[in-house]
Amino acid sequence: MSKKAEADSFVTEITPRSQDFSRWYLDVVRRTELADYSPVKGCMVIRPYGYAIWEHIQQAFDAEFKRTGHVNAYFPLFIPESLLHKEAEHVEGFAPQVAYVTHGGGEELEEKLVIRPTSEAIIGTMYAKWIQSWRDLPILINQWANVVRWEKVTRPFLRTTEFLWQEGHTAHETHDEAEAETLMILDLYASVSESVLAMPVIKGMKSESEKFAGALRTYSIEALMGDGRALQAGTSHNLGQNFAKAFDITFQARDKSVQHVWGTSWGVSTRLVGGVIMTHGDDSGLVLPPRLAPYQVVIVPIGRDNWREAVLPKAKEIEGQLRAAGIRVMIDERDERPGWKFSEWEMRGVPLRVEIGPKDIEKSAVLVARRDTREKQSLPMDGLADRLRTLLDEIQKNLFERARQFRDEHTQRAATYDEFKQIMEGRPGFVIAPWCGLAACETQIKNDTQATIRNMPMNGVTPSGKCIRCDAPATAEAWFAKAY
Amino acid sequence: MSKKAEADSFVTEITPRSQDFSRWYLDVVRRTELADYSPVKGCMVIRPYGYAIWEHIQQAFDAEFKRTGHVNAYFPLFIPESLLHKEAEHVEGFAPQVAYVTHGGGEELEEKLVIRPTSEAIIGTMYAKWIQSWRDLPILINQWANVVRWEKVTRPFLRTTEFLWQEGHTAHETHDEAEAETLMILDLYASVSESVLAMPVIKGMKSESEKFAGALRTYSIEALMGDGRALQAGTSHNLGQNFAKAFDITFQARDKSVQHVWGTSWGVSTRLVGGVIMTHGDDSGLVLPPRLAPYQVVIVPIGRDNWREAVLPKAKEIEGQLRAAGIRVMIDERDERPGWKFSEWEMRGVPLRVEIGPKDIEKSAVLVARRDTREKQSLPMDGLADRLRTLLDEIQKNLFERARQFRDEHTQRAATYDEFKQIMEGRPGFVIAPWCGLAACETQIKNDTQATIRNMPMNGVTPSGKCIRCDAPATAEAWFAKAY
Repeated sequence: MSKKAEADSFVTEITPRSQDFSRWYLDVVRRTELADYSPVKGCMVIRPYGYAIWEHIQQAFDAEFKRTGHVNAYFPLFIPESLLHKEAEHVEGFAPQVAYVTHGGGEELEEKLVIRPTSEAIIGTMYAKWIQSWRDLPILINQWANVVRWEKVTRPFLRTTEFLWQEGHTAHETHDEAEAETLMILDLYASVSESVLAMPVIKGMKSESEKFAGALRTYSIEALMGDGRALQAGTSHNLGQNFAKAFDITFQARDKSVQHVWGTSWGVSTRLVGGVIMTHGDDSGLVLPPRLAPYQVVIVPIGRDNWREAVLPKAKEIEGQLRAAGIRVMIDERDERPGWKFSEWEMRGVPLRVEIGPKDIEKSAVLVARRDTREKQSLPMDGLADRLRTLLDEIQKNLFERARQFRDEHTQRAATYDEFKQIMEGRPGFVIAPWCGLAACETQIKNDTQATIRNMPMNGVTPSGKCIRCDAPATAEAWFAKAY
Repeated sequence: MSKKAEADSFVTEITPRSQDFSRWYLDVVRRTELADYSPVKGCMVIRPYGYAIWEHIQQAFDAEFKRTGHVNAYFPLFIPESLLHKEAEHVEGFAPQVAYVTHGGGEELEEKLVIRPTSEAIIGTMYAKWIQSWRDLPILINQWANVVRWEKVTRPFLRTTEFLWQEGHTAHETHDEAEAETLMILDLYASVSESVLAMPVIKGMKSESEKFAGALRTYSIEALMGDGRALQAGTSHNLGQNFAKAFDITFQARDKSVQHVWGTSWGVSTRLVGGVIMTHGDDSGLVLPPRLAPYQVVIVPIGRDNWREAVLPKAKEIEGQLRAAGIRVMIDERDERPGWKFSEWEMRGVPLRVEIGPKDIEKSAVLVARRDTREKQSLPMDGLADRLRTLLDEIQKNLFERARQFRDEHTQRAATYDEFKQIMEGRPGFVIAPWCGLAACETQIKNDTQATIRNMPMNGVTPSGKCIRCDAPATAEAWFAKAY
């Protein structure tokens, strides 16, 4: 991108995160070319730098889905309106958000088509055809797809009218098998989020009012963003027999009786890219975990006018070695000052910068700068790939630990409702509090503080005492937060 | 899939290919569970067995795109109607085929949205924002996406209302660079089709009447299916400056003048799965090239009632060895007769079947059957993975050679128009004939014979003689065929 272009159409400076988190987020997304606004309201363009992050996220989840016995498939984008209406809660939840296709091939359609907001309806219809006997079960299918939900207020990656996601849809013989699948996926989501995205998450069950439209139970992973607001990062639903009954998905059981299957569905989306930005970023811009950084190492040649002759050949040699060692590396050969390049790649969150100049070549060394700690050290060229690999692993761990520490520092217990309200007004984060289980209290708390129940962890803790808001006995320990 | 299910809703026997090619194709697609019809007219469900083939095709192309400097991105599904109308030929070509979204979020939209039939319009709009200087060029972006073209007559994989594809969109400083990109991609398409799909293709330029709506020139790869009809398997377009002018994509050139960029676009789709089926399949069903077979080897345990105890442990040991060697392998452990399993996996086109019974275990050997030649041989368990790997490579080559031989046997030259018509009535295939370059002749030939010009290879052959239909001097040697 030329400087003229920046000046014309892009943010040139990033608003400091500490000054205005929301502005900072939008600046980072556009200035680092993760995404851009499109001419279609509420829809974004995911630019190559952002899409490369998504590809690494996809690959990590896809490998885990396959390892746990799932296969990919593809179902139609369109859902006949009548199918969406078969499950009563489901249509109630999604109908206000759907986009309708009314004309195709120059003619008005006999039946309007809904663009999938999620695919339970179309997949349920196919499962009813495919499943006949217990021998056909379980069915463990995932699809990577685009979905559309009409949104009034949108924000790149976090909430867009069209987004990319994966949606798993499984069918089982028994409730317990479906529940085991739902929880296995929840664990898988948490594990990939923590190990690949370096984003610590809380696993738990959603309240009735926050569960998926049509599900028996919804579980979620919840992360804490740098501004102390929570982000729902993935959901896993035990659908019970609701969709099976609505779509008539039956099977002949081992005892010859005809039964409805037990279903699950689960998804993560491009929203995770937003989670990565808001978990790790700082005033200078992005900070990317090495496992999903498009470039893990950027090499910046240093030197006077003759750096192309004096330094570049050696830099390319090193680039070749690092690439051969499986490190994602690039050289910035542009005609810009090294200082400009340093800022540029810091802003883009590249985990490691390697500086190489004539003096480094004399010493057969390079200067290596970490993005996360900004520490610099001179490292010998000999064995460089191994040392950088070790540093990348350290950065990955450090980012996770740093985020976990931040999350822990921003998680507290409230003993009284006054204290609860006071916390929510001040330093944000998670607040753990006992809850009676009634939607009325949940709603009142939301009205009073904007905080919602993110989820209720299954950590074996027996709820004790009274609901934080009313005097009824607590039935759960809930994690509250203001959320995206 | 239980037997009851087959009886209820599936083809149980495949119509012999030699008897009815079209019926055979549909039977194979459904019976081997590559795809199924959906409740949405013209849209199919790609089932896991079919989707796994597509994933291997995707991976092969994606690796080549990246190796040649392209990056992936994602643009919106929706295109405001006014954008589609900016390039006159483009809208004329696509408008009759588009689906319109008219309502979203419970309201009628101010401007109708088109569901992308292809993305030149939305991508051109973004390129106009992103490109300012020659330093921003070339832009080499690809996207993997679903597109929608309203079709009256559909056939799974070959022509469906929604399909999956990749579309590359590049922008360059000069015509020659754009032309070089267009041809490089054409070569890449041919190379992956031949080496991974084992599907020989003819590279050439399309006639004016067959080129992409809005392009300067369209090139294609054309394959010959088992029934002698041609399949357009991929297209690469030099867009010239047409879209740049329509979308005002300009840049400041090295000489400081402001110029329009030169564009290309190119795509392959899930249609390739249909090409694989129709290139290699036989009366027994699918024959899959090893490089894209979901399973390259299926192990069938043989034996009497006690095979689970006597044979299965050894079979699993072998499965583990093959998997560790990078071979995609599965054991068929179902309670069915071995003969039934043999037919099932032959039909599903698995390249190699490994039979293992008590006597094989005594001899420390297995029986290996090739799907392509049906040859059987006993192979020692020791070193089995290496031998199977070699066999898989041989099958891959053999399938390609067999298809090329078929193509060559079904390609001939016509000297007179009577001869041309005679050939087209009889044994189908490619017919090479000189052509004057006029659309009138092309149309007349199509009306007389149903054959269209597939493309005109750039093989350095100087056209000689007169047009096959009129007396004007030939300007090209064209490859004609009846096509899908």
